[in-house]
Amino acid sequence: MLYNSMSRAELLELRNDLEAKFEQKKGLGLNLSMARGKPAKEQLELSMPMMNIINENTPMAGEDGMDFRNYGVLPGIMEARKLFADLLEVKPENIVVCGNASLTIMYDVISRAFIHGILGSTPWCKLDKVKFLCPVPGYDRHFTICEVFGIEMIPVAMDDNGPDMDVVEKMVAEDPAIKGIWCVPKYSNPDGIVYSDDVVRRFAALKPAAEDFRIFWDNAYCIHHLYEDKQCEILNIVEECAKAGNPDMVYEFCSTSKVTFPGGGISCLAASKANIDAAIGFMNAQTISHDKINQLRHVLFFPTADDMKAHMLKHAAIMRPKFDAVLDMLEKELDGTGIATWKKPLGGYFIGFNAMEGCASKIVAMCKEAGVVMTNAGATWPYGKDPMDSSIRIAPSFPTLEELIEAAEIFIICVKIVSIDKILETK
Amino acid sequence: MLYNSMSRAELLELRNDLEAKFEQKKGLGLNLSMARGKPAKEQLELSMPMMNIINENTPMAGEDGMDFRNYGVLPGIMEARKLFADLLEVKPENIVVCGNASLTIMYDVISRAFIHGILGSTPWCKLDKVKFLCPVPGYDRHFTICEVFGIEMIPVAMDDNGPDMDVVEKMVAEDPAIKGIWCVPKYSNPDGIVYSDDVVRRFAALKPAAEDFRIFWDNAYCIHHLYEDKQCEILNIVEECAKAGNPDMVYEFCSTSKVTFPGGGISCLAASKANIDAAIGFMNAQTISHDKINQLRHVLFFPTADDMKAHMLKHAAIMRPKFDAVLDMLEKELDGTGIATWKKPLGGYFIGFNAMEGCASKIVAMCKEAGVVMTNAGATWPYGKDPMDSSIRIAPSFPTLEELIEAAEIFIICVKIVSIDKILETK
Repeated sequence: MLYNSMSRAELLELRNDLEAKFEQKKGLGLNLSMARGKPAKEQLELSMPMMNIINENTPMAGEDGMDFRNYGVLPGIMEARKLFADLLEVKPENIVVCGNASLTIMYDVISRAFIHGILGSTPWCKLDKVKFLCPVPGYDRHFTICEVFGIEMIPVAMDDNGPDMDVVEKMVAEDPAIKGIWCVPKYSNPDGIVYSDDVVRRFAALKPAAEDFRIFWDNAYCIHHLYEDKQCEILNIVEECAKAGNPDMVYEFCSTSKVTFPGGGISCLAASKANIDAAIGFMNAQTISHDKINQLRHVLFFPTADDMKAHMLKHAAIMRPKFDAVLDMLEKELDGTGIATWKKPLGGYFIGFNAMEGCASKIVAMCKEAGVVMTNAGATWPYGKDPMDSSIRIAPSFPTLEELIEAAEIFIICVKIVSIDKILETK
Repeated sequence: MLYNSMSRAELLELRNDLEAKFEQKKGLGLNLSMARGKPAKEQLELSMPMMNIINENTPMAGEDGMDFRNYGVLPGIMEARKLFADLLEVKPENIVVCGNASLTIMYDVISRAFIHGILGSTPWCKLDKVKFLCPVPGYDRHFTICEVFGIEMIPVAMDDNGPDMDVVEKMVAEDPAIKGIWCVPKYSNPDGIVYSDDVVRRFAALKPAAEDFRIFWDNAYCIHHLYEDKQCEILNIVEECAKAGNPDMVYEFCSTSKVTFPGGGISCLAASKANIDAAIGFMNAQTISHDKINQLRHVLFFPTADDMKAHMLKHAAIMRPKFDAVLDMLEKELDGTGIATWKKPLGGYFIGFNAMEGCASKIVAMCKEAGVVMTNAGATWPYGKDPMDSSIRIAPSFPTLEELIEAAEIFIICVKIVSIDKILETK
């Protein structure tokens, strides 16, 4: 029933019931979290056999004869470049394999643009203003990098096909201060949006005013499907950019953080050969090589991209019941109330939830009171400021199913109470 | 016999003999390198048991209950912070454990100073001029970082006790544009100089004009002794700076690159708590955590710093015969000739060699002709320019003993020929 069509008395009665439930939950002294996109312990166990894959008898020389244990091979071992090339459907020459975090690659790419410029253009630190487009809701750590470098962030709305490309095309073409756009093109964080072919092609065909404009294509969830029979695919942005005559316009990022181990994985940058060569040139001042032994560990565990994909089905089997549980509860409890909308993702790590305007912060604060930590309200927007105070990111992966159900129950109670209060203001 | 007191005829005769030997060596088509400080294969084998130390049954939770396989613990696992604290004789709170390369930490520290400034001071990118003092001869990769950031490098002479502190004290006190000094305080690269207690204390008591002046203390060879019975120690710079009322003035760097595996090791930054907290704050935008599994691998292999020190004796046993062989050959062939001087290091990875003025480039080029790669002449000086063209870095670690002897023989032939040519110019 639509809460908004209930009478003041009905709402007050419902609120009383909910308040009692809330107090009861609060009394349990819980300590639960739906805050961060962390794999659960069971998921980490899936990759433990990788810990056995190198032992003291493992041959430690690569196909080029280079000893994996010594200095050198800055672009990453060829075997690992081939693995990521296979996964992202590019050539090994379009891949640099780095350390444990694609976030670090993103930071470094921007840091180098800031300090040295991109392929000969003016370093960003010499410019009065650098701006990035930020499709919203988005990933808070992308926004943090921009904040750290003093990059002005401009939110761009998204629909079920991706960012509003009319806006993106217009702004990028008109404003040379716009140097980048953050994209999580597949199973976006947090809404699970998958960019349509049309959107990807329009990205590849952008005509930016800035020669050093780049698309930051964070393909974090490229094989992170939830349903074996409903796997989404997106067009290959590196290929599409090349086809459109913009070969250098994109940096694509990818890692095994949520395939093997967060912190213990490997990551890569995929881009045109010109971009890759420039990156390697600057990386040469930063390090002598990344951890080639861990790269080897990964290629021995995953000889091909298909092996990675098969492994991801095991993750999906653990994640799916959690997503289904939360989605079922939301549907059962909130469908038809008119106080919230949410997405049903087919992959990724989050459920994007929209409360009534002005309610998100209060819901998150109230959850916390009852021992349930949610991502800060506003985190999905640049500067942590959601102008509608509506977007909440639900991360169901880390808790056990039992904890998750408990947490989701409390979350739903809080959503209802805060929404009723909001409606009562106008009754 | 002093070459300089030989007659023109004697020198020409000697030169003929040497030329014949050179041509004979050249005919062998060798491919040898004394260029980089890389551990030999045998040394890499020493740490292979570490590859067995984590398997799928290893408990993966830390003393604080945190799962090493998941996101988090940005300062490094407490066990690893304690290990480095133990090694460098500081508190764990003075340590951040990072990824595989201390070079990356150095680059990042400078990058952050460039972009954000140090503890609230003006970002270096906003300054007209930033200068570093560079004790010479020094490490080329330090100088490359300065070049990348456009930092002006000023060479400072060294003697057997370390840098000329009269010069360092004066320049640092007078010029607020001087923001740093590169030091390899123990078994310096390439001369193997060990800073005396007096030098370390004078460093700690510096009165820099710049509030954001920092000592970049690259303790790369802190336990890399060559002789068990002749181990040098230096004063603890972090402690000395604190005692002198300059607690924030130093960043110390250290890694296991030449203890376990280059590229597969772990590294740390040691500094005051204020510096460490600032570093962690910025690192938070760069990564969610470093590779905690590899940190665990190291602390399981080395429960204490003493275990690391014991392990280093095994490295020394492999390195020592190589250093001794080269040093014996230099002594036998060049002692008393007056055409070269060299240091006899007690640790580290290099032998610092000084040819007659104007001869280094020619010697290195001639070696290359006969298939022996040396570090570029000039590499030990900022901008790769040794004003005397005299300093050559010999790296004996990587070749086998047989290869090394062959390479050193050719090197000595080249030194002699080039020196005779130089002397003949004035006869």
